[in-house]
Amino acid sequence: MVTSAVVNAYPLSSYTFGQKEPKMEKDTSVADRLARMKVNYMKEGMRTSVEAILLVQEHNHPHILLLQIGNTFCKLPGGRLKPGENEIEGLKRKLSSKLAANVPTLQPNWQIGECVATWWRPNFETVMYPYCPPHITKPKECKKLFLVHLSEREYFAVPKNLKLLAVPLFELYDNVQRYGPVISTIPQQLSRFQFNMVNP
Amino acid sequence: MVTSAVVNAYPLSSYTFGQKEPKMEKDTSVADRLARMKVNYMKEGMRTSVEAILLVQEHNHPHILLLQIGNTFCKLPGGRLKPGENEIEGLKRKLSSKLAANVPTLQPNWQIGECVATWWRPNFETVMYPYCPPHITKPKECKKLFLVHLSEREYFAVPKNLKLLAVPLFELYDNVQRYGPVISTIPQQLSRFQFNMVNP
Repeated sequence: MVTSAVVNAYPLSSYTFGQKEPKMEKDTSVADRLARMKVNYMKEGMRTSVEAILLVQEHNHPHILLLQIGNTFCKLPGGRLKPGENEIEGLKRKLSSKLAANVPTLQPNWQIGECVATWWRPNFETVMYPYCPPHITKPKECKKLFLVHLSEREYFAVPKNLKLLAVPLFELYDNVQRYGPVISTIPQQLSRFQFNMVNP
Repeated sequence: MVTSAVVNAYPLSSYTFGQKEPKMEKDTSVADRLARMKVNYMKEGMRTSVEAILLVQEHNHPHILLLQIGNTFCKLPGGRLKPGENEIEGLKRKLSSKLAANVPTLQPNWQIGECVATWWRPNFETVMYPYCPPHITKPKECKKLFLVHLSEREYFAVPKNLKLLAVPLFELYDNVQRYGPVISTIPQQLSRFQFNMVNP
């Protein structure tokens, strides 16, 4: 794991973006998703998911890479760990599945950095909290957000059904309506870092 | 500086609270405060302030110590650094001024830990952001929040005009109306730590 108080943010233009086969969502509705979560919980216990904060800069302001599904819903790249899987290895696997070309030589150098936040799902519902609420002894999901340190140049392959967006921190901040509670408070979680804006 | 992914939270009952002389606010209104900020900026440049997150536990849930002024306004203990003053030393000085008895042998062992957030004030206004907004080259204030690792037993002396409250994370979370943007997102900033709830 790479940790540093100073984080390099390279210009968006230093990365190359291609396309690959679609990655369809496993569920077509929130109800389906919660039902599948329940079935998996019965089989495997608490779900652990890992998500990545990939930073770039434009106009010397930090931006975060988000995957957009359809016209409105945005998510961080990442996903669910297999039972017993290591968090760092699991996040690399998920990032390659979501953002890397199907060519081993074109795999980005995923340098997984600091855990910046942990969110807990107490029930089979959509609401999550940044702590395990009192009296909850069996949370249903623990989601961890990691800062990923990108190299100066990389090739990303984006599934055809998704759009990869670079969203500025000032757009995320205080925008829970559009981005939800997890993504809209990323600016606060990153505020302790010093960003080194690298210009071409 | 003390840094650790695991943070001990001792029960509130293991601390002792006394009183000391009042610490009056320097300003009687927000307008006065912003005017004084402007005068100080002209003399000394950007204001740097440091504030402490002091953790305790009740019912195995983390609580934060806040100073309440009057019936509604709450703030973290801390304050403005002197020009050129070291952040860690300055925070210790402010904590002793706000929360320690006037007896050298009763000074708490202030172990200043991780910086968990940085907030920027772009103008002589109340609004702050967890990043320096684009096109702002001369921010007026930079405020840093530090986790402070308390020892198992301490004696705190609280100024008579203030109340020291232990507020649970679940009360702060998503409560910007009551606690403002800085304090209400502390649960997210602390979520990356693992709390070790120490019971008596």
